[in-house]
Amino acid sequence: MTKKKVSSRYLINRRQAITASLAFGTLGASKSASSTEANKENLPPNLPEWTTYLGDGVDVNPYGVPSEFESHVVRRNVEWLTATAESSVNFTPIQDLEGFVTPNGLCFERHHGGVALINPYDYRLMINGLVEREMIFTLEDLKRFPQTNRFYFLECAANGGMEWRGAQLNGCQFTFGMIHNVQYTGVTLANLLKETGIKPKAKWMLAEGGDSAGLTRSIPIEKVLDDCMIVWAMNGEALRPEQGYPARLVVPGWEGNMWVKWIRRIEFGDRPYLTREETSKYTDLLKDGQARMFTWVMEAKSVVTSPSPEKPINKKGLHQLRGLAWSGRGAIKRVDVSLDGGKNWITAEIHGPVLKKCLTRFTLPFEWSGEELLIQSRAIDETGYVQPTIQELQNVRGVNSIYHNNSIGTWLVNSNGTVDNVRLG
Amino acid sequence: MTKKKVSSRYLINRRQAITASLAFGTLGASKSASSTEANKENLPPNLPEWTTYLGDGVDVNPYGVPSEFESHVVRRNVEWLTATAESSVNFTPIQDLEGFVTPNGLCFERHHGGVALINPYDYRLMINGLVEREMIFTLEDLKRFPQTNRFYFLECAANGGMEWRGAQLNGCQFTFGMIHNVQYTGVTLANLLKETGIKPKAKWMLAEGGDSAGLTRSIPIEKVLDDCMIVWAMNGEALRPEQGYPARLVVPGWEGNMWVKWIRRIEFGDRPYLTREETSKYTDLLKDGQARMFTWVMEAKSVVTSPSPEKPINKKGLHQLRGLAWSGRGAIKRVDVSLDGGKNWITAEIHGPVLKKCLTRFTLPFEWSGEELLIQSRAIDETGYVQPTIQELQNVRGVNSIYHNNSIGTWLVNSNGTVDNVRLG
Repeated sequence: MTKKKVSSRYLINRRQAITASLAFGTLGASKSASSTEANKENLPPNLPEWTTYLGDGVDVNPYGVPSEFESHVVRRNVEWLTATAESSVNFTPIQDLEGFVTPNGLCFERHHGGVALINPYDYRLMINGLVEREMIFTLEDLKRFPQTNRFYFLECAANGGMEWRGAQLNGCQFTFGMIHNVQYTGVTLANLLKETGIKPKAKWMLAEGGDSAGLTRSIPIEKVLDDCMIVWAMNGEALRPEQGYPARLVVPGWEGNMWVKWIRRIEFGDRPYLTREETSKYTDLLKDGQARMFTWVMEAKSVVTSPSPEKPINKKGLHQLRGLAWSGRGAIKRVDVSLDGGKNWITAEIHGPVLKKCLTRFTLPFEWSGEELLIQSRAIDETGYVQPTIQELQNVRGVNSIYHNNSIGTWLVNSNGTVDNVRLG
Repeated sequence: MTKKKVSSRYLINRRQAITASLAFGTLGASKSASSTEANKENLPPNLPEWTTYLGDGVDVNPYGVPSEFESHVVRRNVEWLTATAESSVNFTPIQDLEGFVTPNGLCFERHHGGVALINPYDYRLMINGLVEREMIFTLEDLKRFPQTNRFYFLECAANGGMEWRGAQLNGCQFTFGMIHNVQYTGVTLANLLKETGIKPKAKWMLAEGGDSAGLTRSIPIEKVLDDCMIVWAMNGEALRPEQGYPARLVVPGWEGNMWVKWIRRIEFGDRPYLTREETSKYTDLLKDGQARMFTWVMEAKSVVTSPSPEKPINKKGLHQLRGLAWSGRGAIKRVDVSLDGGKNWITAEIHGPVLKKCLTRFTLPFEWSGEELLIQSRAIDETGYVQPTIQELQNVRGVNSIYHNNSIGTWLVNSNGTVDNVRLG
């Protein structure tokens, strides 16, 4: 099969072709102008050239790296979106991913003062305020508590925030990519706080980051004791620096801004602390000028990752539609897919294990014969909550906010197989 | 807490200290001779120096990398174990890992002719022999089949092979580290073979690798159709080159040598093919000179990853013992831990989700007051199989083999907290 050339506007795909071609060219063995076309000398019945020499041995990379042919699968930012690199964001390439694990190197980043570089032996976590015993813990101290391992998604409250007034960025990565999903290892605050005790008057917890932004958020005590964790590992290894090394707060199902990285202090009080990140920011301005505050939960949402603007259809016939669904309220119960803009819905296959507050992979086989499609997906969680349309959200909340847009997105598949991000209605 | 200095023979820990110290030194801010001792200027009530400057912004690493303070967590080989780098092995640093996901960069490598470097557009999979239609598939073709996502462990049949005659390598990584565990995405052979059909006489499948070793193995048709897969992704992203990019065979629960990497051809026949890798190699020589053949299943096994030779106990008081258990026959049902060389057993906590043919994390809190311990763990799977002692295995199999040693290991914790790999009885 010769892969159909994609339109020139698909910059990511052109980059992929160029990068792969250059990489292969370094072997001096490629005969094709673009690596998206196979080199016939390597095809049956010929002996492929890579079978004719000894390859790299072990330990060329003691810590392994992806294939050079996958160099297009990286986090990307939008240059005009933020003013400085230190207070900015990039996006997970979810259109290129499978299953539900996000590799650590591809987890999107959001910083408010850049990445703190912390020697783990200098790290300390202080617990103060309305506790029985104010205490300071080293990282080694934390690891001596009972441990908990859990897969959780982390989604930025502003994921899809550019889309409130209409389709804007023509990419799956930029429109849905402020999300990642890893297995965390750490100690639940319920277990850790047995050591300090909590005074009866303690109703709220302040979490403070150890970076130069000193990011702070208030969390109600019920959530703290329900499932919050202090974690030091993601996907089996130490937290990555940009994810809060050596320790961060995990607030399952709630907006990513609350998952304070490089966490240095937690304080207990009898009321919320009303920090910048829950007053000026991370509140949702409504039509009447009032603002919704403390909109913590990330409601049920889903996205079709392929086809998508970066994943055009390059051939007629059978394809596997793929996507991700999640809910901050629990497990995904069902995902429906529409190919005609919401008129008809088909229930997709869900791939287990289906875990609470964790990404869930869904797939649906479909035949394509060159017709236009309007692809949508709709997640339903175990509470019965149904992912809404953008019109349903706008009716209640207006269009002023950049936060908590969990509406159904639409991909237009054109007759040439290219895919655009569009707004219906 | 000042971390107690470890014995000079713990080379890995010394390297860690040196590396971290050097790394931190590049900031020109460290006052301590070794980074295992905290820099007091960064401790409360002082303001840590990393809060005083803007850190790296987003996209310094479009594909992220671990903290420089974690540079000791890498795959390692044993120089004398193999003759050439291209036909060699390295080991996963399981003693440093948490949960059950192995990060792709840390999955152990075993090659027989080095790493094949394959342009994915040149990749082809041929299916021939006793099928209704001989066919050749591109990678894109494979991705158009229904997809399956599964977590599976992969263990080399020779994991622990040096230990048959006694404790030899004083490390958890070298003694138990030829194992990894990731989420695979691909197509089941049951689904793929619907396209080619299989003739009634087909009883065995030959899998052939596309590397310079052209590794081949025979697999009975019942296993092929039960749960074998052709996969292109691990932990969400494309297979790593050293794990078979762009496609490998997955043979859940069976020895790693059968999981043919860079898979280029599968052929169906009416009898096993008796390749080098199932006659001269990967057979178990018994006492009487006869050899066990086709010993595919990796039986239930477990290991305590901490404490372990690389993870000494550095403080009296409460600790969390951590370990991994697995079985090629299904799910882990229970793990017992002994601190006295097998006289008394305590049931450990198992961390879910508990999946079939997948690593399972277990933990057990214990108090240490400086006494010697003989730490063991014993896995029991859902079939009722109990991980044996080395004596039980030797009684049946002798000591000639290097394969399928799933016996209970023993760590001796010395009174100074250091840990040694020892043989009891």
